[in-house]
Amino acid sequence: MNVSCPVPISSAEFVQLAHGGSGRVAQRLLDMVFRPVLGNPQLDLKHDAATLDIPSGRLAFTTDAFVVHPWRFPGGDIGSLAIHGTVNDLAMGGARPIGVSLAFVIEEGFPVASLADIVASIGQAADRASVRVLAADTKVVERGKADGIYISAAGIGEVVSAVPILPASVRAGDAVLLSGDVGRHGAAVMTARDGLEVDPPIDSDSAAIHEPVLAMLAEGVEVHCLRDVTRGGLATVLNEIAGDGGIGIHIEEPAVAVRDDVAAVCELLGLDPLYVACEGRFVAFVPEPQAEIALGIMRRFEVSSGTAAIGSVREGSGVTMRSRIGVDRVLDLLSGDQLPRIC
Amino acid sequence: MNVSCPVPISSAEFVQLAHGGSGRVAQRLLDMVFRPVLGNPQLDLKHDAATLDIPSGRLAFTTDAFVVHPWRFPGGDIGSLAIHGTVNDLAMGGARPIGVSLAFVIEEGFPVASLADIVASIGQAADRASVRVLAADTKVVERGKADGIYISAAGIGEVVSAVPILPASVRAGDAVLLSGDVGRHGAAVMTARDGLEVDPPIDSDSAAIHEPVLAMLAEGVEVHCLRDVTRGGLATVLNEIAGDGGIGIHIEEPAVAVRDDVAAVCELLGLDPLYVACEGRFVAFVPEPQAEIALGIMRRFEVSSGTAAIGSVREGSGVTMRSRIGVDRVLDLLSGDQLPRIC
Repeated sequence: MNVSCPVPISSAEFVQLAHGGSGRVAQRLLDMVFRPVLGNPQLDLKHDAATLDIPSGRLAFTTDAFVVHPWRFPGGDIGSLAIHGTVNDLAMGGARPIGVSLAFVIEEGFPVASLADIVASIGQAADRASVRVLAADTKVVERGKADGIYISAAGIGEVVSAVPILPASVRAGDAVLLSGDVGRHGAAVMTARDGLEVDPPIDSDSAAIHEPVLAMLAEGVEVHCLRDVTRGGLATVLNEIAGDGGIGIHIEEPAVAVRDDVAAVCELLGLDPLYVACEGRFVAFVPEPQAEIALGIMRRFEVSSGTAAIGSVREGSGVTMRSRIGVDRVLDLLSGDQLPRIC
Repeated sequence: MNVSCPVPISSAEFVQLAHGGSGRVAQRLLDMVFRPVLGNPQLDLKHDAATLDIPSGRLAFTTDAFVVHPWRFPGGDIGSLAIHGTVNDLAMGGARPIGVSLAFVIEEGFPVASLADIVASIGQAADRASVRVLAADTKVVERGKADGIYISAAGIGEVVSAVPILPASVRAGDAVLLSGDVGRHGAAVMTARDGLEVDPPIDSDSAAIHEPVLAMLAEGVEVHCLRDVTRGGLATVLNEIAGDGGIGIHIEEPAVAVRDDVAAVCELLGLDPLYVACEGRFVAFVPEPQAEIALGIMRRFEVSSGTAAIGSVREGSGVTMRSRIGVDRVLDLLSGDQLPRIC
């Protein structure tokens, strides 16, 4: 990726402590790297706060820290991931994303050209998701006090769902829809981290998923709950919803798509793909009579063209799965994490 | 500081990688440390996005990463600093702070008891500033990949000023008011960092400064520009405003208060207190005829009881200062930073 800059960026330039400060050197980094890509009337990086007109009503507000290692992986990088993750959290609250803020913590010595790549990737992801970067901050820490770059993002959105989209809204009988195959983001990051040769490489599924959500809401689907399938994978998010909603969830293993290459990498690494993170997949809980309509809407969008009905909600608690050979087993919450620093 | 927890926190407990994940261990950390202090109806740490009703109109939105080293210093810590810094950025945009989000990046091995101290400090600072923590996220990185703890905060507020509070609104003839003595935050952090024995210790001025701002706006003061005196100190923020506003600023050195102990520490460390950060001070640019009224309002509040008129705006550019012996000198923008990781 290249970024057009008023001052050419030398591949020999590295981020210095002074780039995180308040002096001329820091201003030059902003002018060189950030403004050409992210500049907009709200994002004057010198001001304390952006201001914007908003419609009255309910606002959604979310934050996430991104510490993915390595910062670049097949199908994305920490910059696009920060935009997608934030847009998706807003969408999962039934909100139309408006804008994001980004706070960078950069390790001294990080290549300025890599920072420019990340900022370009942020710009592209934000454009595609129709959100603006409204506020930003940059801090630089000494060598050995970070791992290249961390980005914390916050997002604001306009809630467009008339009813709360929450685990507590889930009802026995609801259908569970999954927007596509699972495990690709985790597999992409792990192969990049471990230097595994996979040909062709497994691309992360990292993407913004607000469009199918907004379409369902606009077309009158009574969405009870939404959750993006991130840390801990499908099994974990279903357990969280079952626990918070006080209900049980049953899914059918054959309905859950896992690509062969992802399954192979997971097997190699000793991971269960049902616990591996996605960054462009979500589950939707809708009343059974609306499941076909919701499925049709979701499949209209490329990002959720692989949507499948994978199960249903029951009275009770916990998550069970009927395997390919017809045996029911409990999908439990793991004690720790299979994969640290996946997002 | 102590925090009341459902499960006692052992001084022998340290943050593990799994605490940043999605499993039971991570849930336990949230239950132990975060929920008892920060719990509110909006902050269910399991949800993707908080939602809240907002008044129609203009929203202010801001972000900052906090990487202060050491994380605890006389008069505050990284937690209270994150709340104050965010509240203050909103106030500087003429906004009433509504809520903040916090994204934690924690180094593996950080003491859980220290994390609890920081969260308690966040809770107290948020209560005092009447803001709620609406969203939070926690990531843990491996030992050696951070420096204890970093916190990125974002904030939202309701803009209550009728006119834009911006450098471009500053006019020749405006009075420049400074809300108190300068340099204490930087001096507090540097003495803590370097282990300098100062008796009594120099407390940071870290505090929320929204109340005098909101009072000025409520009482009809036509505030042209506000800026909190943070990174780079008074000299830097005045230069930024002069540059962005296309005006010149002249100040009188004897009007700028610097405590004797702060001056002594700065001299010892070879620093100019005019370039040392505060975290509870701001400059206000108001029309000269309203300066006395504004001064009176600001002095009513403890946080700005030391407000002084320090100078005025002129046609031209740059910042000049008349010294105690009556000589004018230019206060320039520094090239780099005097003090890295001060906030």
